[in-house]
Amino acid sequence: MTVSSNRHIGSTGFVSLIGAGPGDPELLTLKAVRRLAEADLVLFDGLVSQDVVAMAKRAQRFSVSKRVKRPSVNQETIHRLMIRGAQRGKRVVRLKCGDPFVLGRGGEEALALQTAGVAFEVIPGITAAISAASLAGIPVTHRGMASGFMVVSGHDRNVFEPLLANVAPGSMTVVILMGVLQRSDIAATLLRTGWSADTPCAIIQSASMPQMQLWKGHLRELGSPRLTLPGKDLPGTIVIGEVTRLSGLIHHKAETRETIDAIALRG
Amino acid sequence: MTVSSNRHIGSTGFVSLIGAGPGDPELLTLKAVRRLAEADLVLFDGLVSQDVVAMAKRAQRFSVSKRVKRPSVNQETIHRLMIRGAQRGKRVVRLKCGDPFVLGRGGEEALALQTAGVAFEVIPGITAAISAASLAGIPVTHRGMASGFMVVSGHDRNVFEPLLANVAPGSMTVVILMGVLQRSDIAATLLRTGWSADTPCAIIQSASMPQMQLWKGHLRELGSPRLTLPGKDLPGTIVIGEVTRLSGLIHHKAETRETIDAIALRG
Repeated sequence: MTVSSNRHIGSTGFVSLIGAGPGDPELLTLKAVRRLAEADLVLFDGLVSQDVVAMAKRAQRFSVSKRVKRPSVNQETIHRLMIRGAQRGKRVVRLKCGDPFVLGRGGEEALALQTAGVAFEVIPGITAAISAASLAGIPVTHRGMASGFMVVSGHDRNVFEPLLANVAPGSMTVVILMGVLQRSDIAATLLRTGWSADTPCAIIQSASMPQMQLWKGHLRELGSPRLTLPGKDLPGTIVIGEVTRLSGLIHHKAETRETIDAIALRG
Repeated sequence: MTVSSNRHIGSTGFVSLIGAGPGDPELLTLKAVRRLAEADLVLFDGLVSQDVVAMAKRAQRFSVSKRVKRPSVNQETIHRLMIRGAQRGKRVVRLKCGDPFVLGRGGEEALALQTAGVAFEVIPGITAAISAASLAGIPVTHRGMASGFMVVSGHDRNVFEPLLANVAPGSMTVVILMGVLQRSDIAATLLRTGWSADTPCAIIQSASMPQMQLWKGHLRELGSPRLTLPGKDLPGTIVIGEVTRLSGLIHHKAETRETIDAIALRG
């Protein structure tokens, strides 16, 4: 099953829009690994881990980061690089953090490829929206606590405010990506909407990596301008709701990948 | 990074709660494949594809389906089988559809293991909640259309009604798992809440598999008791919102995996 244009097949290259997952290379899909190994050109988001990028052994590799307050590559340039690569017959991988279609402008990239008549496919990845919580022992849904969850961009207050203000307080787990710097505005919006200041919440930074950091607290603290996170202002996933209490019940223990493997291989 | 009990390590086996993804074995993570290859015992959900289960070459493999109106294994039995396996020193894989912590009682399984003092880990998987849409050309978020999405269980009307009734009409993409049989009640709930009958929606069945089926329509048709889906009453993912219009723009073309590979390998 693929998403592709039916024009130019056979006469141009091919683009794979690939989700790189949360960071740990072991959380790539088999399909992603195969496409990376075969790629001629890889255009990767700045936050994709170096170990993942390094899997594209024979490819030219370019970072196309868009970062706050730093020199960055704009969206149109990314489109142009993908299209030009494919038109020159290359196997192009566009490697995006998490899942390509979760808050990452993957839809725009797919439309640009479609418009240019370039054949492409979308390979889903493990989104941090769910896995950052899981890896901290927090199920985004749990019988009797939450039968649903929402995922919202925390990048822009004008975007998250109307979305958060319209959800019944405590009715489901709220997951916010790209919201670490706006955390106090996010908390303020929920408190105004009627969420309890005692609602438990968590922030997971560097999810799936050996340096993963977990902060746990309540909406009250999340709203405090004095809150300092263990991972400082690194990107992170904010999880709000009763389910975050489970990270204490499901015992959470930070270990390197080597340690996990030692446990798993122990017979 | 692992989620584990610190009791009994070294004296018992180990359980991996693994997400098997939407169906295509190529969408397993590297870590999942490795654990399957090493497993002594695999307990798999009935809907996990046979090709995925077959990767556990040296393991005893048991289906622990919970299916509507059919003989099924209850949750307590699943807990007992996992715990007993680990206590006998086995490397146990509990293989769940999609992601283990999205509407799949994975949290309960983790708590049961924790309570029994069994070491375990959670390996996230590709959830159908996002990937079924992606693979049909639908990004669950898209700039200017939806800056967030919610995922809700459609299994029980008493659960989905209050969740859906509290979200502002059209404010975000709504994804419903396990809701195919309740589709007309789901549509009715949204229509009562003020969603437009013209809201576009889609149902994806057998996502990621060669037999994948896509239905597209509007809330009006979703609510009709006369609607017959291409995949009949097979499980599926319901996606509601403007983003479903993109599956026409992002050209959707069903192809077997062999064909994709042929395209990707074309040099």
